[in-house]
Amino acid sequence: MTDTSKKTFIVFSGDMDKVLAAFVMANGAAAMGDDVTMFFTFWGLNALRRPEHVETTGKSGIQKMFARMMPRGPSKLKLSQMNFAGVGPRLMKSVMHQRNIMTLEELIATAREQEIKMLACTMSMDVMGLTADELIDGLDYVGVATYLAEAEKASLNLFI
Amino acid sequence: MTDTSKKTFIVFSGDMDKVLAAFVMANGAAAMGDDVTMFFTFWGLNALRRPEHVETTGKSGIQKMFARMMPRGPSKLKLSQMNFAGVGPRLMKSVMHQRNIMTLEELIATAREQEIKMLACTMSMDVMGLTADELIDGLDYVGVATYLAEAEKASLNLFI
Amino acid sequence: MTDTSKKTFIVFSGDMDKVLAAFVMANGAAAMGDDVTMFFTFWGLNALRRPEHVETTGKSGIQKMFARMMPRGPSKLKLSQMNFAGVGPRLMKSVMHQRNIMTLEELIATAREQEIKMLACTMSMDVMGLTADELIDGLDYVGVATYLAEAEKASLNLFI
Repeated sequence: MTDTSKKTFIVFSGDMDKVLAAFVMANGAAAMGDDVTMFFTFWGLNALRRPEHVETTGKSGIQKMFARMMPRGPSKLKLSQMNFAGVGPRLMKSVMHQRNIMTLEELIATAREQEIKMLACTMSMDVMGLTADELIDGLDYVGVATYLAEAEKASLNLFI
Repeated sequence: MTDTSKKTFIVFSGDMDKVLAAFVMANGAAAMGDDVTMFFTFWGLNALRRPEHVETTGKSGIQKMFARMMPRGPSKLKLSQMNFAGVGPRLMKSVMHQRNIMTLEELIATAREQEIKMLACTMSMDVMGLTADELIDGLDYVGVATYLAEAEKASLNLFI
Repeated sequence: MTDTSKKTFIVFSGDMDKVLAAFVMANGAAAMGDDVTMFFTFWGLNALRRPEHVETTGKSGIQKMFARMMPRGPSKLKLSQMNFAGVGPRLMKSVMHQRNIMTLEELIATAREQEIKMLACTMSMDVMGLTADELIDGLDYVGVATYLAEAEKASLNLFI
């Protein structure tokens, strides 16, 4: 039996535009009283990284390299199209500001105020070489089985 | 309670191959009598642009630039892989023609004949700097809440 | 009426990371006793190609060219981000090995042992110039209507 008030979003992509779309939908659903879960996996985890460098132990050389090359947090994400070495995202943010559209940082803060459940995929963290210390607070660390259990009760499940 | 005959597709991507996949599924479902809704957002809106230049007012310089750089309509879309500066899409169209597969233009026309509901995301239009005058006729202009209300009643919801 | 134990995954992407995500979820669901269907379309078909060259007849010149340029099987897939001409996938595989995470080849073998239904989209095969001889055994060759019929009974449907 699915519950129409339950919704889940997989954030696989770390592209600014896709992460924006995910948070706009998640916040929209939560504002209407829905029970919303977001599952961050692979590049999507980059949207949840702390902006500062975090000292970590136990990473292999390759994992360190991956972590160093990937964007740290919402302000560093690229566009999936027309990125132009970072000019595209800057221009898009400037239009969003002119038009009073919430930034990704504000959308993430709103998601947390609205108590959207934010799950980080531990297997992806392992593959990408990211540790919990490098991610923002308030996340649950889970495997794919937890996501699947949430999704099968929901009326809307998207892979973004 | 979900309705098995209701289906929704978010067209976020503006890649020719992904937009093709969306319209093939949407038309297939409509042909079987389903109630189908497509929600066009971000780059997906480019599939609905008129091919000709449209004079607009009230756009900022950045919005004008975005609008000028993005493809105008289905014949201008790129492939997500093997685009090769436009050679890939031309080759794919030529194979589709040889094999009697409907073009994207024909699929869009069929979608409209089958009365598939086509929704354009107004927030994305704002971000991308696209106005209703630049898009084809017969669209509904809505926010994310309208999409979410449609999706929660549907048995199939895909983000493409 | 949807069946919570039924799940479908469209594998449209041929990127190593996205195909990995699809098989991890599909195998996870099957391990919990779910009835799982995967529908391979467009670039996703490349994950099912045999690694060796297969002699085919009836292909146009363009179809031959497409087939020659696309990756043959799971070991040849690219990353959607940080591919760096094949260095990225090699590094990711090396981390996965260190951490005892299953390779894509192992995940595909497990999917078959778990009797996950694997459907190949015949229209995409036509567009991409791929024949059944070039794909691994044990697939069903179907059109989009078959996918839609499976999906509308399922509690989870993702487009990857």
